Amino acid sequence: MLIFLGDGMGGRPIPELDAKTTIEAADTPSLDRVASEGACGMMYPISPGVAAGSDTAHMAILGYDPYEYYRGRGPFEAKGVGIDVNAGDVAFRCNFATVEGKMIVDRRAGRIKSGTDELAAAINEQIPQLDGVQILFADSIEHRAALVLRGEGLDEHVSEVDPHHEGVDYWDCKPLPGHEHNEAAQRTADIVNRFVERSHEVLKGHPVNKQREADGLLPANITLPRGVGAAVELEPFSQRYGLDGAMVIEVDIVRGLAMYLDMSVITAEGATGGADTDEIAIARSVVAACEQHDFVLANIKAPDLGGHDGDFEQKIAAIEKVDRAMACILDNLDFDHAVVILTADHCTPVSVGDHSGDPIPAAFFGSGVTPDEVRSYGERSCSQGYLGHFTGADVMNLLANFAGTGEKFGA
Amino acid sequence: MLIFLGDGMGGRPIPELDAKTTIEAADTPSLDRVASEGACGMMYPISPGVAAGSDTAHMAILGYDPYEYYRGRGPFEAKGVGIDVNAGDVAFRCNFATVEGKMIVDRRAGRIKSGTDELAAAINEQIPQLDGVQILFADSIEHRAALVLRGEGLDEHVSEVDPHHEGVDYWDCKPLPGHEHNEAAQRTADIVNRFVERSHEVLKGHPVNKQREADGLLPANITLPRGVGAAVELEPFSQRYGLDGAMVIEVDIVRGLAMYLDMSVITAEGATGGADTDEIAIARSVVAACEQHDFVLANIKAPDLGGHDGDFEQKIAAIEKVDRAMACILDNLDFDHAVVILTADHCTPVSVGDHSGDPIPAAFFGSGVTPDEVRSYGERSCSQGYLGHFTGADVMNLLANFAGTGEKFGA
Repeated sequence: MLIFLGDGMGGRPIPELDAKTTIEAADTPSLDRVASEGACGMMYPISPGVAAGSDTAHMAILGYDPYEYYRGRGPFEAKGVGIDVNAGDVAFRCNFATVEGKMIVDRRAGRIKSGTDELAAAINEQIPQLDGVQILFADSIEHRAALVLRGEGLDEHVSEVDPHHEGVDYWDCKPLPGHEHNEAAQRTADIVNRFVERSHEVLKGHPVNKQREADGLLPANITLPRGVGAAVELEPFSQRYGLDGAMVIEVDIVRGLAMYLDMSVITAEGATGGADTDEIAIARSVVAACEQHDFVLANIKAPDLGGHDGDFEQKIAAIEKVDRAMACILDNLDFDHAVVILTADHCTPVSVGDHSGDPIPAAFFGSGVTPDEVRSYGERSCSQGYLGHFTGADVMNLLANFAGTGEKFGA
Repeated sequence: MLIFLGDGMGGRPIPELDAKTTIEAADTPSLDRVASEGACGMMYPISPGVAAGSDTAHMAILGYDPYEYYRGRGPFEAKGVGIDVNAGDVAFRCNFATVEGKMIVDRRAGRIKSGTDELAAAINEQIPQLDGVQILFADSIEHRAALVLRGEGLDEHVSEVDPHHEGVDYWDCKPLPGHEHNEAAQRTADIVNRFVERSHEVLKGHPVNKQREADGLLPANITLPRGVGAAVELEPFSQRYGLDGAMVIEVDIVRGLAMYLDMSVITAEGATGGADTDEIAIARSVVAACEQHDFVLANIKAPDLGGHDGDFEQKIAAIEKVDRAMACILDNLDFDHAVVILTADHCTPVSVGDHSGDPIPAAFFGSGVTPDEVRSYGERSCSQGYLGHFTGADVMNLLANFAGTGEKFGA
């Protein structure tokens, strides 16, 4: 069983494309073949109209109700970059950023490419704890990092430090509305604020930043936490489904989810998580993973970036990458003994520049699937499919049904 | 209101039929008329991809959530053959079988046709109780029977005795995984094992079996319990809906459900539950029942048998029986004052040989129904219908809506 996702691939009509969506406008012979020879439908990852995050969408599609289990992205980010998150911990996604005073010059420190490992080491060495709470910090790709607070009396109901805009001051962390009298949240916010200040003290004079400034680059002179979350408990995937599962992924947050679910994590060589990712390397990893595992989920991040950037040409190019990866998978997997769902984790319409709650075209192809009349993969075409509109929570049941591994409920 | 079900009628494409399903390939002018003049859709009895049993599907379609109420098939089987099942009882479906030692020669004792009433009487007489637990046993059609254990300290979390294969030993009944320390489950398992042994002692020398052996037939020399379940509590149908309801049915398990719901149970003369059933007799019973009752559910079992047997010609013939029954109903019921949903309780694809979680074509016809563009009854055609994809839980509301008996929710 394979879940193959073009991240954020679904969209809305674009005037410049004669009111086609980016999927409809892209040249996608392999995606169209999957739709044409498969059974189509539309998927709402959570429910109609609800815009899902990457984390909640992947949870829902894998059958873990995010309303029951989700407690923020932080723990997935931290797990994804190699920090364990235990019960009671509070975790954050962080950015290395450039500030002057409190004013944010660049939220991504000039998309810093190297040296963040040294910066992270300095933070861990010089800020081992604050107010008796252990500080665990790790860097990831480019400006990305994660922070875990470990100690007694912490609470995740605190606000963001990163205002998601430049030219403004970063925010103070505070207890969330309704948690003003929550002492643990107040203490957590205080520690976060001290951590932000201390990170600035540690980083501003660091040799990595002195060199960047000498090179005319923006210094990574602070870290800005956001995306707070508390540790979650998720039943391992193998235990829930009796399947040996793997994920072929590009982004930390989904890698973290895979680690929480105790699934095998595969990163294809050449997978960058960017518009320049090597989609053929990803496809080959998917094929190899399918030979080793009962179940594989793969996600190509690039279409989502075009959506967030509001750039339909970039998004079309990324969808054509997904198509080339699909071609390689179709050529190399035996679909008499495999079944795939081709879809996305959510829509990221270019016109919105963020995730939306629109339905996502979905096509099942392979063993056990009843082909329908749909002849191309797209928003309007798949809405005419045999399987109708379903939700992320139905995906594992539908896959098991076609694969013949589903258990009958009743007699 | 009429729910008219071709049991297991839905399916998947069959290569020998030019990739048509058995419904699509069958000659069904009356089913097509219902679809053509009615409003179509696709029904998932439970939810997309979930393969339903006959029991759970009928429960869902009648509006009784099986996740809330279902506790195993046993009580429906037992009720269906005339044993009451009370709170605290544990009930089983049983087969009369042929063994040599513990090895199963034939799970159905040569599909024994007669004499099982005498065998059942011998069991009830000679095994009235075990370890203080009352034993209630009843035979049904052919090799089928049911067993109820009545007493203190019983529990339904025990395993099957019938391994569903021949040429192997029958299984010992044990507490289910996770119930190893459940004393009531252990006691129940011990009683089941003693019952199986005692049934062999009672049956092996019984005159019915001596005669069978003399006639060159396999003796029904043991009973093998399976399909365990605990008594359930279901609100009577008339109380839930304010409707006087009846079921025209062929199989014990659905009859048992009807009895649980305190509905009138009608068995048409000539209804055999087999491929040779008299579909016209069933249709006439349905018409008569509709004149007497507000609500009727009817089920013709034959298509399901072809699916389980993996025999598409048998299944097509059975679907054409359903079509002839539908013709008789169309001829004799006044659909200005009646509404029918034509569908199935689940799919039983020939290629699977068991129930699947695929969507089932459904067509509403009669009073209050908006005809759509669908022109034939089938999997692919009905997926284009006006009513979209819905679940079993929606069926009673849709029927009441068209019949005009639904209550407005709100003002």
